Amino acid sequence: MAAGSSIGTVFRITTWGESHGTAIGVVADGCPAGLHLTEEDIQKLLDRRKPGQSKFTTQRKESDQVEILSGVFEGKTTGTPISMIVRNLDQRSKDYSEIASCYRPGHADFTFDEKFGFRDYRGGGRSSARETIGRVAAGAIAKKFLAALNITVTAYTKSIGPVEISRERMDLKEAANNRLCMPDAEAAREAEAYLEEKMAQCDSAGGVVECVIHNLPAGLGEPVFEKLDANLAKAMLSIGAVKGFEIGDGFAASASCGSVNNDAFRMRGDAVVKATNHSGGVLGGISDGSDVVFRAAFKPTPSIARPQDTVSRDKKEMELTIHGRHDPVVVPRAVVVVEAMAAITVMDMLLLSMTSRLDMIQLFFQVEEGSDEE
Amino acid sequence: MAAGSSIGTVFRITTWGESHGTAIGVVADGCPAGLHLTEEDIQKLLDRRKPGQSKFTTQRKESDQVEILSGVFEGKTTGTPISMIVRNLDQRSKDYSEIASCYRPGHADFTFDEKFGFRDYRGGGRSSARETIGRVAAGAIAKKFLAALNITVTAYTKSIGPVEISRERMDLKEAANNRLCMPDAEAAREAEAYLEEKMAQCDSAGGVVECVIHNLPAGLGEPVFEKLDANLAKAMLSIGAVKGFEIGDGFAASASCGSVNNDAFRMRGDAVVKATNHSGGVLGGISDGSDVVFRAAFKPTPSIARPQDTVSRDKKEMELTIHGRHDPVVVPRAVVVVEAMAAITVMDMLLLSMTSRLDMIQLFFQVEEGSDEE
Amino acid sequence: MAAGSSIGTVFRITTWGESHGTAIGVVADGCPAGLHLTEEDIQKLLDRRKPGQSKFTTQRKESDQVEILSGVFEGKTTGTPISMIVRNLDQRSKDYSEIASCYRPGHADFTFDEKFGFRDYRGGGRSSARETIGRVAAGAIAKKFLAALNITVTAYTKSIGPVEISRERMDLKEAANNRLCMPDAEAAREAEAYLEEKMAQCDSAGGVVECVIHNLPAGLGEPVFEKLDANLAKAMLSIGAVKGFEIGDGFAASASCGSVNNDAFRMRGDAVVKATNHSGGVLGGISDGSDVVFRAAFKPTPSIARPQDTVSRDKKEMELTIHGRHDPVVVPRAVVVVEAMAAITVMDMLLLSMTSRLDMIQLFFQVEEGSDEE
Amino acid sequence: MAAGSSIGTVFRITTWGESHGTAIGVVADGCPAGLHLTEEDIQKLLDRRKPGQSKFTTQRKESDQVEILSGVFEGKTTGTPISMIVRNLDQRSKDYSEIASCYRPGHADFTFDEKFGFRDYRGGGRSSARETIGRVAAGAIAKKFLAALNITVTAYTKSIGPVEISRERMDLKEAANNRLCMPDAEAAREAEAYLEEKMAQCDSAGGVVECVIHNLPAGLGEPVFEKLDANLAKAMLSIGAVKGFEIGDGFAASASCGSVNNDAFRMRGDAVVKATNHSGGVLGGISDGSDVVFRAAFKPTPSIARPQDTVSRDKKEMELTIHGRHDPVVVPRAVVVVEAMAAITVMDMLLLSMTSRLDMIQLFFQVEEGSDEE
Repeated sequence: MAAGSSIGTVFRITTWGESHGTAIGVVADGCPAGLHLTEEDIQKLLDRRKPGQSKFTTQRKESDQVEILSGVFEGKTTGTPISMIVRNLDQRSKDYSEIASCYRPGHADFTFDEKFGFRDYRGGGRSSARETIGRVAAGAIAKKFLAALNITVTAYTKSIGPVEISRERMDLKEAANNRLCMPDAEAAREAEAYLEEKMAQCDSAGGVVECVIHNLPAGLGEPVFEKLDANLAKAMLSIGAVKGFEIGDGFAASASCGSVNNDAFRMRGDAVVKATNHSGGVLGGISDGSDVVFRAAFKPTPSIARPQDTVSRDKKEMELTIHGRHDPVVVPRAVVVVEAMAAITVMDMLLLSMTSRLDMIQLFFQVEEGSDEE
Repeated sequence: MAAGSSIGTVFRITTWGESHGTAIGVVADGCPAGLHLTEEDIQKLLDRRKPGQSKFTTQRKESDQVEILSGVFEGKTTGTPISMIVRNLDQRSKDYSEIASCYRPGHADFTFDEKFGFRDYRGGGRSSARETIGRVAAGAIAKKFLAALNITVTAYTKSIGPVEISRERMDLKEAANNRLCMPDAEAAREAEAYLEEKMAQCDSAGGVVECVIHNLPAGLGEPVFEKLDANLAKAMLSIGAVKGFEIGDGFAASASCGSVNNDAFRMRGDAVVKATNHSGGVLGGISDGSDVVFRAAFKPTPSIARPQDTVSRDKKEMELTIHGRHDPVVVPRAVVVVEAMAAITVMDMLLLSMTSRLDMIQLFFQVEEGSDEE
Repeated sequence: MAAGSSIGTVFRITTWGESHGTAIGVVADGCPAGLHLTEEDIQKLLDRRKPGQSKFTTQRKESDQVEILSGVFEGKTTGTPISMIVRNLDQRSKDYSEIASCYRPGHADFTFDEKFGFRDYRGGGRSSARETIGRVAAGAIAKKFLAALNITVTAYTKSIGPVEISRERMDLKEAANNRLCMPDAEAAREAEAYLEEKMAQCDSAGGVVECVIHNLPAGLGEPVFEKLDANLAKAMLSIGAVKGFEIGDGFAASASCGSVNNDAFRMRGDAVVKATNHSGGVLGGISDGSDVVFRAAFKPTPSIARPQDTVSRDKKEMELTIHGRHDPVVVPRAVVVVEAMAAITVMDMLLLSMTSRLDMIQLFFQVEEGSDEE
Repeated sequence: MAAGSSIGTVFRITTWGESHGTAIGVVADGCPAGLHLTEEDIQKLLDRRKPGQSKFTTQRKESDQVEILSGVFEGKTTGTPISMIVRNLDQRSKDYSEIASCYRPGHADFTFDEKFGFRDYRGGGRSSARETIGRVAAGAIAKKFLAALNITVTAYTKSIGPVEISRERMDLKEAANNRLCMPDAEAAREAEAYLEEKMAQCDSAGGVVECVIHNLPAGLGEPVFEKLDANLAKAMLSIGAVKGFEIGDGFAASASCGSVNNDAFRMRGDAVVKATNHSGGVLGGISDGSDVVFRAAFKPTPSIARPQDTVSRDKKEMELTIHGRHDPVVVPRAVVVVEAMAAITVMDMLLLSMTSRLDMIQLFFQVEEGSDEE
């Protein structure tokens, strides 16, 4: 794939739009026909990433109302591209002269200028987190499609700064109760205190999001380059601010032993299952029937309110103080983006997995099996 | 990309072959014309991944001699596909009946059967580490191409099991001196002792490989899905046994603060540089001119000589003891595979980056700049 | 490419929208940064395909005003996706019950139902000619980009029904003067008479569009599957109603002789040129520096006002009379669609052609040539 | 697709090799597991394109023995890449100095030099007809796969120079009896006489190949850019020497009327069928259940034994006489290449068509239908 705003093969999404342009949107192509879909299905997920929901998120007032422009007829997807749009309401003429004329540390200002020669500097332009609106809208479709196959995708905050959830206390329902999406009330309180400290210091924090894909059939993913985990890794690293990805035991596995890290196979009734899940649901790049479990590491928000050393576009060293309010941590709002990107990736690979076996294809086309034998 | 054995867009490689089939190979398409290339260039890199080199690697005797079958004429690449082949010599009729009839823990036996209905069980078939021969052969081309642009790609062992190199002692030349490819002689000795302990316990170890891309121009990578780090992540997770990827400070960044993690911009002569490199050379998915630094985490070798619980193909629980000699750790031989995949990824993105700006394109085609203005 | 509404690699467009949905649009990704672009540039081309312009085109009243939603900043393309939208105004609740319940001969009603299980039957849904709005909008960008490299793309009507233009009388300026886009006033008059006859008979006509790409550098296109002419053929056949494609002498070449069909090479000053252009500007799939000349054959409009035999969705034979006004020929409005698809195809292949030679790449990155030699 | 030697998405082939290099081959990736496949299956098709079979084909003595190197185990495809190779035996050191130093009219010599800076001039290098060996080998797999679904692909010579088969006399079995693959003995005799005349004149001829795909289910192909006929057009134009493509009535449709060209739908038992097949089996880019019928026009062989005007690489005008024996017409040997490319295209689109409908996907994954409804 060359042009950079598309991802996926059979189910492919293309996002577009800048932070302070007219609108933000996505075209989701290749969704099978016959899926019930309404704007409410999309809006529900979009509302989970909306700013202005707590003291830890930006106060930008955007209702972020989605409109479905194509691809749905009489309440069902038609198999043709589903175009969705969210108008940017908050385009008030702010003063961007400072951002325009220098490079914010930790942002893409410098690299955009190097690549394209100039950039839309308003609110970060294309590299703004608002670009994820398109991902989440498409992710809502993918989540609905997967639900129709009884597959669920659930992400939550695993850590903020140094504060981690406890596996013992972990309770997924709790993640919906606190503003940090942590499935552990105690860790959430601790993390809130940590964030308030960082805000008082004009500083910011990072964190880790964990995601679980439940009920995925075994057999998804291709053996070599199109491994399921390789595509999940790309999908996660494609999210701005993500600096790391791991599946199953991940980096910890590198310090473990084979006798511990190998998951024994056992029978549960008629089904082959794994006694443990160090692999994170993938063996040789192919789903193994266990939960797929992976994590994405987010760096601290680069926009901080204290003076920073940088250089101007005309190549003079200077000191920059970024004004305005910014999230001290992106993680809580990124949880739904992780879910969306995981769902989009899995949906595509599930559709592709249908062509692996001749006998299943013959069944699909209602042709007698074995008809290729002499 | 659906068919799973290809990666890349403009420079695209396709690997093929099973561990105990007739041969293993790769077709590298899209290499620009005019690059000097000989079989020795390829062989040099292949020799770095060859088994039978130390007591920590399998004793399989393979000379792994590469033959270039196309795409090179009078010592230079012609711009057409470069096909390379390595014959499998060690195809002696071993007894594979046990592997054939059950699922080795930590291997892809079960998932292949679920996906394809059956599998070539000899030596792991397509999911064998021998598949990486094709990657390394193609990587040798990519490394030579990048060298022609003064770009280098260097990987080494960062840790084996719990034994890590020390940044203070780190010396890249040392990595060529020890069998574990560690740029720290003391850590290498410690790691050797650790591995001997594991072997005595019929157990295995994992580790981390670090890779540095030096002298990469700023501006490579696309803003949204085709980020440079997203493609590196996919390339790394596409290597069997890799369970994690991180760039720059990676997972550690998630526990850091913005004031620490942000890299200040400074001037060095006429050039904009970063005072630190927490970002690992990528901002917003686009190379920023600093070294690109990333790590891949490898799980412990799944083939261990102690009895393991598993199930047979006919769905009966059983105990399996894997015979034969296996590497107690894959990391030292994986170092060159990481280098190869990094070079392949970067070469492709560098070629794609040439089309970012109209003024550069006009220059390339020797057309007067600004001719689109009214 | 699986998901079907995208075309192109480096410059890739994705169209969306149904005839009577909310809107129609396109996302054009991968346009180089720095191209001057306004909504007027797009509107000018769109106005050439607008209905309601003569008695030979439908009377649907659509202003088809385009809005650019992203990817342009301060009058120039930014290198990020350019999203464009045209609202469908003419959505008056017509009675579609008949089209909904049966299969119009020559239309895609039956095949959509077979493929997707149901369809948006209003005005042909996704298979309506209104889908080409997205193509033309993206084509306007491609034409502007090519113009910045002094390359022009010009299409015109070569024949309508049995009436062909005469090469002797041919005058490209004349194509803008008559409603049929024929570069031959006499043929245009004859063709008008033919069309009036067909309309009186409640019948319709087809025709051929010819396209010339001027000033294309030699060296575009890839030797095997990605031939320039192969991609032009796909682009043309992707237009609804096109049933044939030929380049240079095309089908006539199959009845010719080598001694006639071969174009001799000659010198014109310092440049190698061809004495004739039977090849149509492509040799071995690669542009040869002569004008690229190709033709697309359009079938007669399938919507005719006389009774036709067909079957209903509930599988009963019936007679159908299509009401409403339809173009007796699609060719005049298709001329600009041919131009757009040609420009999109050529722009993509031109960008891809920049990576063919190491010496040119070294020049581009300002690296000393020959640095890969030992 | 950028790198030019691959085609297809789910079933994707990559050809490689030059006329006088070490070998020629193909990697066919994405073939479903479980298809019975032997080297004989491949050889049978390869033998149909072999040179040296009649006085109208080159006397090059090549046995063209294929070897399957991977992807087949115990007689069945494993779902992994199938690599196939044919060694070039006839590499005798011929004198290529003349071809090396000038541009043969009608060949790709000039365009290769323009694109790549130099070329492998031996026997045409990559643009030699020997490249089609890889296509035919992969096509043999596709034909076998399609046969397992009861779908057949049959091509034959429709015309040579001005000599066409008669629809009345047409008999497909006859095509196997004569050296020109014409399903009409009388036309074959006439065409032989025509070819002998051309050979006597040191000249050459072109022709048209027609292809019929029988028993293809309705519903293959995507509505917009990935139309079935658009992909067939690309596949055909990707064959060297092809200058035109048409489906159904093709160019003749452009001179026809809607009342004639529209195919009425009728019932045959429970099935919807078309009373005629002017469409050539495709409506709106999607297969309609009728035979898919298309034609490819081949230009006359450019290598002719009479003196031709051309220029040398050092840009001097000169006269060139091509020595050695060349086919006076490529059509008879191209018939099997057309079949191969058609089968490869249709196999890919058939696999992709499996993901069009949610209800079919739910059935495939054995999930209860309608489970996405609220």
